Amino acid sequence: MNKIEHIGIAVKDIKTAGSLYEKLLNTSVYKVEEVASEFVKTAFLQAGPNKIELLEASSLDSAVSKFIEKKGEGIHHIAFEVDDIEAEMARLKAEGFILLNDKPKPGADNKLVCFVHPKSAGGVLVELCQENPLTP
Amino acid sequence: MNKIEHIGIAVKDIKTAGSLYEKLLNTSVYKVEEVASEFVKTAFLQAGPNKIELLEASSLDSAVSKFIEKKGEGIHHIAFEVDDIEAEMARLKAEGFILLNDKPKPGADNKLVCFVHPKSAGGVLVELCQENPLTP
Repeated sequence: MNKIEHIGIAVKDIKTAGSLYEKLLNTSVYKVEEVASEFVKTAFLQAGPNKIELLEASSLDSAVSKFIEKKGEGIHHIAFEVDDIEAEMARLKAEGFILLNDKPKPGADNKLVCFVHPKSAGGVLVELCQENPLTP
Repeated sequence: MNKIEHIGIAVKDIKTAGSLYEKLLNTSVYKVEEVASEFVKTAFLQAGPNKIELLEASSLDSAVSKFIEKKGEGIHHIAFEVDDIEAEMARLKAEGFILLNDKPKPGADNKLVCFVHPKSAGGVLVELCQENPLTP
């Protein structure tokens, strides 16, 4: 894994949380993006080589909505940057980790992503992400 | 904030979790350290410029023990690296964040640390850390 690409944080309201995290990190939200396929609105803040991704559910069907209902606002997942997501998925599968998708799928911030089931990763929802080579 | 210094993950057994995260991150635990003042055993793994800190309670009085009892194993806190922890503590206090300690205190991995109360930081336990200049 190259680095922690971002930490995903489940929030009820992305504007309120955006202001709070701007104060906390002493920086500004640099991108707001809706990921329709995941039923989330996202906002990104930078911390050196890493990012904080705020996640607001845009539907009650969103995993983020269910997460907040169960656990409240807080850290939702860790995303690691990889160079070759398909190779990394194959490696993890061979190690016994359960992947939540068979193929990489488009995520926020121009990434190809894959999630690892928290049950196989010590209770942590892990995301792999690779810069999407197909988009400009 | 310079970067995410580490993500703290609460685990029941640091050896079992260490093996799991070694497989997940395709790297080895490079340091195991007990922090008696926090009632935790820690193990560190590197992911590029960032670290994963596994935390096992060494006493039932440990915050980690209470966390696992309430929420199960999983992500416990995010630690950000700062250059000047006292200046950053003063800035956050002025912004209305609640700090869990008045002065920086020694943490694992040769750091001076301070925690921000999750109630004031959107449900996230935030740690500030600065390399401890007093130790070699």
